[in-house]
Amino acid sequence: MEKTDVLVIGGSAAGIVAATTGKSFNPDRDFLVVRKEKQVLVPCGLPYIFGSLGNSEANLIPDDAITGSGVRLMVDEVISIDQENMVCETATGQKIGFEKLVLALGSNPVTPKWLKGTDLENVFTVPKNKTAIDILGKTLEKSKKVVVIGGGFIGVEVSDEINKLGKDVTIVEILPRVLDAVFDKEFAVKIEDLLKSRGICVKAGRGVKEILGDGKASGVLLDNGEKIEADMVILSMGYRPNVALAEKAGLKINDLGFICVNEYMRTSNPNIFAVGDCAEKRSFLTRTPKGIMLASTACAEARVAGMNLYKLSAVKTFGGTIAMFSTAIGDTGVGVAGVTENLANERGFDFVTGTFEGVDKHPGTLPGTHKQIVKLVVARSSGVIIGGEVMGGPSTGELINLIGFAIQNRMTVISMMTAQIGTHPLLTGPPTAYPVIKAAEAAAKKLW
Amino acid sequence: MEKTDVLVIGGSAAGIVAATTGKSFNPDRDFLVVRKEKQVLVPCGLPYIFGSLGNSEANLIPDDAITGSGVRLMVDEVISIDQENMVCETATGQKIGFEKLVLALGSNPVTPKWLKGTDLENVFTVPKNKTAIDILGKTLEKSKKVVVIGGGFIGVEVSDEINKLGKDVTIVEILPRVLDAVFDKEFAVKIEDLLKSRGICVKAGRGVKEILGDGKASGVLLDNGEKIEADMVILSMGYRPNVALAEKAGLKINDLGFICVNEYMRTSNPNIFAVGDCAEKRSFLTRTPKGIMLASTACAEARVAGMNLYKLSAVKTFGGTIAMFSTAIGDTGVGVAGVTENLANERGFDFVTGTFEGVDKHPGTLPGTHKQIVKLVVARSSGVIIGGEVMGGPSTGELINLIGFAIQNRMTVISMMTAQIGTHPLLTGPPTAYPVIKAAEAAAKKLW
Repeated sequence: MEKTDVLVIGGSAAGIVAATTGKSFNPDRDFLVVRKEKQVLVPCGLPYIFGSLGNSEANLIPDDAITGSGVRLMVDEVISIDQENMVCETATGQKIGFEKLVLALGSNPVTPKWLKGTDLENVFTVPKNKTAIDILGKTLEKSKKVVVIGGGFIGVEVSDEINKLGKDVTIVEILPRVLDAVFDKEFAVKIEDLLKSRGICVKAGRGVKEILGDGKASGVLLDNGEKIEADMVILSMGYRPNVALAEKAGLKINDLGFICVNEYMRTSNPNIFAVGDCAEKRSFLTRTPKGIMLASTACAEARVAGMNLYKLSAVKTFGGTIAMFSTAIGDTGVGVAGVTENLANERGFDFVTGTFEGVDKHPGTLPGTHKQIVKLVVARSSGVIIGGEVMGGPSTGELINLIGFAIQNRMTVISMMTAQIGTHPLLTGPPTAYPVIKAAEAAAKKLW
Repeated sequence: MEKTDVLVIGGSAAGIVAATTGKSFNPDRDFLVVRKEKQVLVPCGLPYIFGSLGNSEANLIPDDAITGSGVRLMVDEVISIDQENMVCETATGQKIGFEKLVLALGSNPVTPKWLKGTDLENVFTVPKNKTAIDILGKTLEKSKKVVVIGGGFIGVEVSDEINKLGKDVTIVEILPRVLDAVFDKEFAVKIEDLLKSRGICVKAGRGVKEILGDGKASGVLLDNGEKIEADMVILSMGYRPNVALAEKAGLKINDLGFICVNEYMRTSNPNIFAVGDCAEKRSFLTRTPKGIMLASTACAEARVAGMNLYKLSAVKTFGGTIAMFSTAIGDTGVGVAGVTENLANERGFDFVTGTFEGVDKHPGTLPGTHKQIVKLVVARSSGVIIGGEVMGGPSTGELINLIGFAIQNRMTVISMMTAQIGTHPLLTGPPTAYPVIKAAEAAAKKLW
């Protein structure tokens, strides 16, 4: 029987980071990652395979990310976990004994049962699986009209990439706007306008009744009776945590279908940890259970698990997800951290907002300058910043991270207004009107 | 006699922000900005006038930045301050009574007295003055070989812009490398290599003995006897706070020549504030007096002054400068916040460093990916992050701000390692190896 100190099941972002962080702080322990895929794709890079990257080979996580840190790697599928004897069994019949187990089981794309036609040829989801993605890519090459069902991040990113290839793309989204679940209306409207200006057809506020076709997909029927022609349909209707293995082993699963964990990422068994898409998420601000799945959150959880495998360290905990994310459409970036105005209302916060529209270089006459719009959501009595949205240029990703750091550090609008920043003509907004600070000022004026 | 509630002397970044922030929080008070320049240049944009912007008109701060906020503007020069009667007098003989006075007097470029030849034709400094900059620009058009004396930020930026115009440029820097005073060696070496690869000649570790010429500059004589031909010489040898007016009025000046202020930016007279390049700076970490001048710091001070004009608010204070800055050479960005390893040694910190070399997109096969190198300086016993340096792509400016926020919030390597970030293929490093977090991990491993 194979034996290891720490067994990690899953070799995508969360599994890699849990194993390598754990090894880094426990160099004398043996770490083994078992994953079923021969090759692993960069999960966030999936939409970019089709356009910007050209092929899936350019989107692989090298095995060296695991083995280079002294962690062993085995390609096999774990099919059962014996909690009592601390042994896992694999599809090839191997048994692996462990002291600590980390579940980084990931998630799978949703194919809704109620939707007719998902079994037709040329209907795809976007799974984190190279073989499947390569088939999708091959079909895409031959396709001319693509309908993407679901206008969340993956749907928007995939559509923009397909559009770059010069193909007809339509996004169908049941919410009033694409990305409506994550951005406030004024941002979602701008994103939608941008997509349209790039030639993408957006059908928002429209449900899908049926995928049409005889053997092969030929179109999509909307709930208003409209038919959209298509020779390919991509479903981006969310992902579901992959918890079958954990459930079968008797680990506790929460109401949203995630493996229950505490803030050290321990499951109901203190020797078993869960991290990433399969692990329970809670809001940083309200502790409300959430269904969000992000590689960046997954990696934060994985670091926490990796540092707490053998001894808990009270400061190294996961305080709840802040749900920071960003994306780019052309050279425009959008990002969000913490609560939007919508969500703040839904959760029942007493709050104000502050918005500022500036530029991402200064003077704004510099070539390549983007508008930079920042909106902050601020708790009324404390002045604590609880959310932010940004639309700007290539610095948007790090700017939303800066706002995320403000939220994590419980910064108030006053600490933001007295905060120091660095500015440079080619790299940031102006010191006199740095949009994050001006947005804080706009909110502060409503508080006093 | 003219009367106002709050008189602000100086209409560049600090003056504008002090006046408009003050007005924003005291809408019923009258605010008057008096500045001597008809038109004001964006200070950080100065080097970019010559290349990227094309002319100084594209680098003006519009008067609307002042008057659009309900602040009055007067073009005149204040020549004396009567502290007792709270009246200023101007060059045109006007008297202006005030309740509160904000000095935003700025700084002037240094022309060293010991250096022979600075009075020759075609020898320039880089002042914040449109007329002078326009003359410099005109001369530059006709020049072919330019020597820039001083390889700090302004010297490097001006040189890179002149190089873009296809002219011969040589930077002479007395320190062992350009930007050596602000970056650790490994970064300064890379910056110097980058400048050289772009065709700029760098003479570092070399002092200037004399500017040669008969009437007109013809070259520069170095301390090793080498002569560099030039038909134009630009001095970027630092700036000196403009405090003559304050000194004459009897306000306290510190040993470095700056107007003394407390953390509310009050001078020795509680009704008079000083902000920006003319105001005293202290280190955020050690309270050591510093000579650094940055528009971003100036604006932070100005916001603090603006919020504390009439009533002090204990939380709205300026806690010392963190000296965050960034610059760009081509599409490579470099930035620094807090102490470098060099400075940490000089100040006597007990510390470790952590460095990580990653990428600013993911996968790194994406077009336009830059290396992203992050170095953190961490206090040994507390694990508090006290400094950071970054070399990367266009997101460098906001990434160094993120590190600056970590420093301002006294984040430890542990809080950094458990921090959440957002990542996106086109906008940031990968979630599995986000360079700031990996650098924190590298430092943390040295602590335990």
